[in-house]
Amino acid sequence: MAVVLMSSRYAFNVGRAFRISIASCSGKKYSSSQEWDAVPFDEVKRFIVDCMVKVGTKRSHSELLADNLATADHRGHYSHGLNRLDMYVHDIQSGITVSEKEPTVLQELAATAYVDGQNLLGPVVGNFCMKLAIQKAEQVGVGWVVAKGSNHYGIAGWYAMQASKKGLLGMSFTNTSPLQVPTRARKAILGTNPLSLAAPAGDGDSFVLDMATSTAALGKIELHDRKQIPIPDGWGVDSNGKMSNDPKPVLDGGGLMPLGGSEVTGGYKGYGLAMLVEIFCGILGGAAYGPNIRRWKNTDRVANLGQCFIAINPDAFAPGFEVRMKDLIDTCRELKPAEGCDKVLVAGDPERQHIDMCQKRGGIPYHPNQIKYGKDLAAKLAVEPFKLC
Amino acid sequence: MAVVLMSSRYAFNVGRAFRISIASCSGKKYSSSQEWDAVPFDEVKRFIVDCMVKVGTKRSHSELLADNLATADHRGHYSHGLNRLDMYVHDIQSGITVSEKEPTVLQELAATAYVDGQNLLGPVVGNFCMKLAIQKAEQVGVGWVVAKGSNHYGIAGWYAMQASKKGLLGMSFTNTSPLQVPTRARKAILGTNPLSLAAPAGDGDSFVLDMATSTAALGKIELHDRKQIPIPDGWGVDSNGKMSNDPKPVLDGGGLMPLGGSEVTGGYKGYGLAMLVEIFCGILGGAAYGPNIRRWKNTDRVANLGQCFIAINPDAFAPGFEVRMKDLIDTCRELKPAEGCDKVLVAGDPERQHIDMCQKRGGIPYHPNQIKYGKDLAAKLAVEPFKLC
Repeated sequence: MAVVLMSSRYAFNVGRAFRISIASCSGKKYSSSQEWDAVPFDEVKRFIVDCMVKVGTKRSHSELLADNLATADHRGHYSHGLNRLDMYVHDIQSGITVSEKEPTVLQELAATAYVDGQNLLGPVVGNFCMKLAIQKAEQVGVGWVVAKGSNHYGIAGWYAMQASKKGLLGMSFTNTSPLQVPTRARKAILGTNPLSLAAPAGDGDSFVLDMATSTAALGKIELHDRKQIPIPDGWGVDSNGKMSNDPKPVLDGGGLMPLGGSEVTGGYKGYGLAMLVEIFCGILGGAAYGPNIRRWKNTDRVANLGQCFIAINPDAFAPGFEVRMKDLIDTCRELKPAEGCDKVLVAGDPERQHIDMCQKRGGIPYHPNQIKYGKDLAAKLAVEPFKLC
Repeated sequence: MAVVLMSSRYAFNVGRAFRISIASCSGKKYSSSQEWDAVPFDEVKRFIVDCMVKVGTKRSHSELLADNLATADHRGHYSHGLNRLDMYVHDIQSGITVSEKEPTVLQELAATAYVDGQNLLGPVVGNFCMKLAIQKAEQVGVGWVVAKGSNHYGIAGWYAMQASKKGLLGMSFTNTSPLQVPTRARKAILGTNPLSLAAPAGDGDSFVLDMATSTAALGKIELHDRKQIPIPDGWGVDSNGKMSNDPKPVLDGGGLMPLGGSEVTGGYKGYGLAMLVEIFCGILGGAAYGPNIRRWKNTDRVANLGQCFIAINPDAFAPGFEVRMKDLIDTCRELKPAEGCDKVLVAGDPERQHIDMCQKRGGIPYHPNQIKYGKDLAAKLAVEPFKLC
């Protein structure tokens, strides 16, 4: 046995972080719990629509936002659902995001369109763009639509799934406020820059990848900080650009690491992917990009986000796409798990599990803090609070 | 101070792996050295063409292969250059790859084409497809071409750069023999599945991302094994699907981990990306996919790889793409590095450094083993060996 001496805090971090990082699997555990109250899906949407309409948002725009946010919660992505409603309400109230216009097409070719989001709500811009991409894919095989002048648009997967529900492949990307630190740097100049791909697999089955290009979301680090537990390797760096297993220095002047973590574990690849997303969004779109996107939670100027929406028609290629897709994802699911691991999943399966759980509950379970937050918002806006199951 | 007791081998691994993984940067060091002999770029190509023609390959096909392989070495990706020549020579000699045909278009729409690679050399198929994608992008904004019946095609970036050299964005993807183990699994059923994006930035500058979706390439692990040094976290798993810092169990029945490494450090994201590449290649293309692709180095049956080639016309979107692209990459390069780190780079910069070094040497430097390998192959095929600088 070798004896390794290290400072106690460091040892704690080494022990915890290393034990966490060497496990090949850890099972994404949803925080939703049997003790929480649940709200029916349609009631969540009703509540969101009422709040947004109350502050002057067009009903059709409110409905698009409500569908995206409720879908996020339904899929277990609570950070991007009801949790963000007050932000959207405030954006409309302040006028920093508008509702009295519609997106416009600035330029169009058979397979592409360049759209001005006109500073409308993200889901309004995204829904317009993805519809257009789908039309083009049905006509010429691919539709590739880029927007400038957009805003935060909820979960990227919602847009991709609009295409997969129609038997097409769908992709969506957005840039975001800078939070991610490029490999070897110390300053966050790129967004979490998510990408999404949804592909149909027949019989209601599908592959749905919806992922930030940073290793972890800011929210996960904030949660670890609140619970006072260390974060694993590869999640965040401090203000000197040094990887930290302590969440505090990351949240205080540090930033998110790209997927892959440090350089030797592949972080330059995640950084390359974050750049790919920015290229499709801010650079192609002539929108704000990189460090000149307004800071997260800062609404003194318009966001002018760039977003990209792609639809691909599998009928333009080899017949039988869905059969092969189903075969591949079932092959993955049937793989023998590694020692100590749960069942092998494919992208979209954790969300399916959450949706099944909601089905059994008769609605979406929310943490008591979120129930209270919803009641407070209802009172503040004089809107009917959501009814529980 | 806390005292942490662990087995000596483990401590060695913990110490080494942890020290390696906590450094935010480590500088990708090229193995090319001042003491190595160098071969002029055109002479490398001449040699490759002569070898391939000698065993019956069409001259035009040989030239495409030679350009891809020499470019790989020029860019410092030695594993995919001259190093692979004997494999291509053997493929043609054995007839498992052919040369007496040309790729054919099976189906075509304005923005897409579905191509039969006819079991030709990968670079022949890829060159045909990317040319077609570029034409379509110039006409309708995007060209998206998928091929089945292809073979190993060298570096993905070579295809993407054909588009960026013409002022377009280019992407390429290929599936490969299974080497990557999905998150929570123990068996390798996906390929290294690389993706590539090249975007022009004016004045000969560009962004060129060319990356496998596994954390590391098999070759890197083999190198560590030969040098008897541990591998960092997130590179490989043993045959039980457990992460290993010892290269031997990885090479002996184990496999490569997806980008992100273990589940908690984001490995399910790299696994999702490997699936994305397979969806674009084997699934869209009706080619071999996943576990049914023949094993690496096994040539008893055709490969029938799937590949995808995309070209995007930036003029279909916001004017001034190259100016913004240049601004973003220069912004990254000018970032203050983290403590102890070298200059911040963007994807394509390490390759640029290698090319500059070759320029100064008057040719591509090769390890003595590769020089010998070239001489042996020349003797075996009765071809003029390459002249050194």
